[in-house]
Amino acid sequence: MTLYGYWRSSSSWRVRIALHFKGLEFDNVPVHLVRDGGEQLQAAHLQRNPMGQVPVLEVDGVYLGQSMAILEYLEEQHPQPALLPEMPLQRAQARRIAEVINSSVQPLQNLSLVKRLHAEFGADKVDWMRSVIQDGMDRLESSVAGGVGPFLVGDGPSFAEVCLIPQLFNARRWGCNVSAWPTLLRAEMAAQEHPAFLAAHPDRQPDAQ
Amino acid sequence: MTLYGYWRSSSSWRVRIALHFKGLEFDNVPVHLVRDGGEQLQAAHLQRNPMGQVPVLEVDGVYLGQSMAILEYLEEQHPQPALLPEMPLQRAQARRIAEVINSSVQPLQNLSLVKRLHAEFGADKVDWMRSVIQDGMDRLESSVAGGVGPFLVGDGPSFAEVCLIPQLFNARRWGCNVSAWPTLLRAEMAAQEHPAFLAAHPDRQPDAQ
Repeated sequence: MTLYGYWRSSSSWRVRIALHFKGLEFDNVPVHLVRDGGEQLQAAHLQRNPMGQVPVLEVDGVYLGQSMAILEYLEEQHPQPALLPEMPLQRAQARRIAEVINSSVQPLQNLSLVKRLHAEFGADKVDWMRSVIQDGMDRLESSVAGGVGPFLVGDGPSFAEVCLIPQLFNARRWGCNVSAWPTLLRAEMAAQEHPAFLAAHPDRQPDAQ
Repeated sequence: MTLYGYWRSSSSWRVRIALHFKGLEFDNVPVHLVRDGGEQLQAAHLQRNPMGQVPVLEVDGVYLGQSMAILEYLEEQHPQPALLPEMPLQRAQARRIAEVINSSVQPLQNLSLVKRLHAEFGADKVDWMRSVIQDGMDRLESSVAGGVGPFLVGDGPSFAEVCLIPQLFNARRWGCNVSAWPTLLRAEMAAQEHPAFLAAHPDRQPDAQ
């Protein structure tokens, strides 16, 4: 398998965590999202993904896009060690948390959106990033508070932490008040003890700057 | 099971399609997203979902949120008739298409985002809706063009059409050029022959206006 991604892309990071967690070998091919207007928009990458996005996971010559679809694929094909709990309602809860981040928080901090808001309306990039992440994660915290922990669902890291850890990195990068999220921070601390989460960190990637 | 949703919410619509497709009985409880500042933000609904969003599916007294997590739950618990193909790479493709809509297109047309852009920057609601949907769906079309059809993946409707049909409704509502998406329209036409897609249509819901 070959992963086409970017060291600081949170959705690439999710896929790296899952690959390492399941002990799968893969080649890591960087696609630079900023240089030369973005390599993801150049012909070589558009052939892999006409959406012009990372990550893309190449499996047996087929290009898979969208991080959540890739996580589900890896879970189905390589079920152990598992990144979803066994109990149906717990699986739904892990996916819910992952999807809050994937579909309610991350899209609002997407680079192409923020560029457009700046160009069209003069929006301040830092203010925008900080406010959308703070608001979304405040609400996520309120929906998980009271759990017994340390993990958000079940006895180990799940899709919830796979999406959470990159999102917390972004939250700190843009100056959010992360101390408002004690339940999320407790899960982060527990997940980060796992070698897969360490190996997937942006600073450990070959294209880190 | 009880579905808390809104007739015109595209993510509520997705869950309705899946419930009807699988022939599952459910109670339909409307949560009005506009009246009185939005019932989804009032105490009764925040107790079901602290995120203040629809849909919520109540199962055995447990509240499940996020439409994609609910779709996966229903597929696991009620696998037949299936809304995912059998072949692993086709499953990944169906989920990819669903996630393009769920995480790349829908969040940018979300009512709360558009309200904020109008209040903060004076953004024109119609222009914004039309441009983000057109751009996202143009790219989705380019990523599925060339398929043998009529369905986007495999021999029947999948998560891809479950997300596509509500999104095309929104695209028309905001005046997009849907004729630019022949592959998507072909899949829509095929899916709409299925009674589940008809029964889930907003105009057939008890809270339709």
